[in-house]
Amino acid sequence: MIEVTVALGSRSYPIYIGHGLLSDSALVRQLVPGKQVLVVTNQTVGPLFCQRLINHLTEMSVNVLALPDGEAYKTLGSLELIMTRLLELRYERGCVVFALGGGVIGDLAGFAAACYQRGVDFVQIPTTLLALVDSSVGGKTAVNHPLGKNMIGAFHQPRAVLADLETLASLPVREFRAGTAEIIKYGLIDDLDFFRWLELNLDDLMARTPEALIYAVERSCRNKARVVGQDERESGVRALLNLGHTFGHAIEHAMGYGEWLHGEAVGVGLCMAARMSRDLGMLPVDDCARVIHLIKRAGLPTVRPPHLGIAELLSAMRVDKKNKNGKIRLVLLKGLGEAVLTDTYDESVLHATLADDGR
Amino acid sequence: MIEVTVALGSRSYPIYIGHGLLSDSALVRQLVPGKQVLVVTNQTVGPLFCQRLINHLTEMSVNVLALPDGEAYKTLGSLELIMTRLLELRYERGCVVFALGGGVIGDLAGFAAACYQRGVDFVQIPTTLLALVDSSVGGKTAVNHPLGKNMIGAFHQPRAVLADLETLASLPVREFRAGTAEIIKYGLIDDLDFFRWLELNLDDLMARTPEALIYAVERSCRNKARVVGQDERESGVRALLNLGHTFGHAIEHAMGYGEWLHGEAVGVGLCMAARMSRDLGMLPVDDCARVIHLIKRAGLPTVRPPHLGIAELLSAMRVDKKNKNGKIRLVLLKGLGEAVLTDTYDESVLHATLADDGR
Repeated sequence: MIEVTVALGSRSYPIYIGHGLLSDSALVRQLVPGKQVLVVTNQTVGPLFCQRLINHLTEMSVNVLALPDGEAYKTLGSLELIMTRLLELRYERGCVVFALGGGVIGDLAGFAAACYQRGVDFVQIPTTLLALVDSSVGGKTAVNHPLGKNMIGAFHQPRAVLADLETLASLPVREFRAGTAEIIKYGLIDDLDFFRWLELNLDDLMARTPEALIYAVERSCRNKARVVGQDERESGVRALLNLGHTFGHAIEHAMGYGEWLHGEAVGVGLCMAARMSRDLGMLPVDDCARVIHLIKRAGLPTVRPPHLGIAELLSAMRVDKKNKNGKIRLVLLKGLGEAVLTDTYDESVLHATLADDGR
Repeated sequence: MIEVTVALGSRSYPIYIGHGLLSDSALVRQLVPGKQVLVVTNQTVGPLFCQRLINHLTEMSVNVLALPDGEAYKTLGSLELIMTRLLELRYERGCVVFALGGGVIGDLAGFAAACYQRGVDFVQIPTTLLALVDSSVGGKTAVNHPLGKNMIGAFHQPRAVLADLETLASLPVREFRAGTAEIIKYGLIDDLDFFRWLELNLDDLMARTPEALIYAVERSCRNKARVVGQDERESGVRALLNLGHTFGHAIEHAMGYGEWLHGEAVGVGLCMAARMSRDLGMLPVDDCARVIHLIKRAGLPTVRPPHLGIAELLSAMRVDKKNKNGKIRLVLLKGLGEAVLTDTYDESVLHATLADDGR
């Protein structure tokens, strides 16, 4: 088992990475600070892993709330359901919420833990590649609003992340591919060695060989943990983790959540950021091609769906937490492994980037 | 103008106390960090003070959201309304929310500010005595859930509190009385001198003479600021500020929110805490009588409504954020000006306290 620490002073916590961690009784038990556990999961993942988890939790109050699967349920309505359950159970401030699932469950259950009685403990138990390498680490929690993704939320760090790679064995291939978008993102932001490693080892990773998988997950988590440790509340460098996400969120928003997976939208978003950086003369043409090629090899889309309008995408991009004084702020690439946040760019290049649907 | 500081390191902020502060253009303008302001208020208070406030805010985006008045609207539904407005306006992370109203508006708008884009600035502009001396200070924000009061919320400190005593001139007498319950509470917790001052000057305070008013508000705010500075997240001494509130919340919950004012329930709660402390042999009989006498002089109820059942009250008390291991934790009095938090008490005395309806 590998342990990566997210260093945040009194809010520091470990990320445990390994195979079969859900079967490690001592490890699971130490994640419960008191005697009350609510496992929040979804109806797809719950039946696969929940029993394995709660088998270890004897002599305490353990309850499970399985919500329908999907981004469409990351809402204030679902938050209220969790609150109702916690209150019906009379769970106290000393309880803990286990978020067992992908990014939707992690964000939603994490936000519920942030708000219940003004904050209780929670543990991230990610079961998708995307959640393992990205959303489970860093304490960002949120639900969506019809007018914008992740617009209602909190910074609330988990007490631990339990990243059991065994849960990935049953992950549908489409979801696995989606997760690689976030992995490639880390290479692009400021880890050129990792990007090169991915170019060399992507086939092994996509085949889910244990060595490639654990290497990619650990390196991603170390990248994320470092950035979060420097800038917990995204007042600076953490914004770079949004590479590909401003474009990606706009696509998701314009298509309606649930059509594409988040990682698929981010995959295209990374390509759009690379193309725009190229067209602004910031990124060499060959490097841009390397980005798009790697995204393509991961089985991800590289161009946006053709039926979306530019106005629609622009409108969605204007509702973004990074924006200041009405200007859309973008994370772009000055090179492979060198992302920058900027709001000074030629707007016509942005429009051309949005217009490009690969035809 | 008096300035009291809530000392919380990087989250420190001033409480400005004085007459006519809403008319102080320079003061109001400095409360806006950027160029976007949403004033959240209610339909009673908004028409009285809103215009005075926003007159100062020129050359920026200022919008007003006036919700219906009352505790019944302190819900997730109202939270969603505020979020919708902020998103429709495309307000950015640099915006500020002004909470103009009593405790309900302060708690609700503060929680909205805590959650919008994972946290934006807000300013408390309390217009009731209760909000001035208690709820506007300390960063507790929340909405109610049908199963429990203030169960969904966050700790989110305002960037300032603007306590204009002029707003109290139009406050209905019943609401003014309700606010004195929290003032008396500070004396009882650990400020015996203040309690004695209240015994001597209560008539002046109830007559709203400017000297008595400003003294009581400042001393209350200093008490609150000191406790919050020691224990922002209520892991220790801050729980003492709940004196009278466990009983009070139970009464409010059992009666249905809105029947009694919060301060009225707290008034009875203080009497119940005093009686229970007396019956446990902790508080001298004469001191208990002084508490009840002062509450009565403030025009507040001193016994619970007769139609509530003990089982109902006990059940409501079990849903309290202070509780640990299923035990109801209570703030009781070891003396005037000496409150203690305890969960070791004779339960039959608790039952007798709940049973006592003054008949």
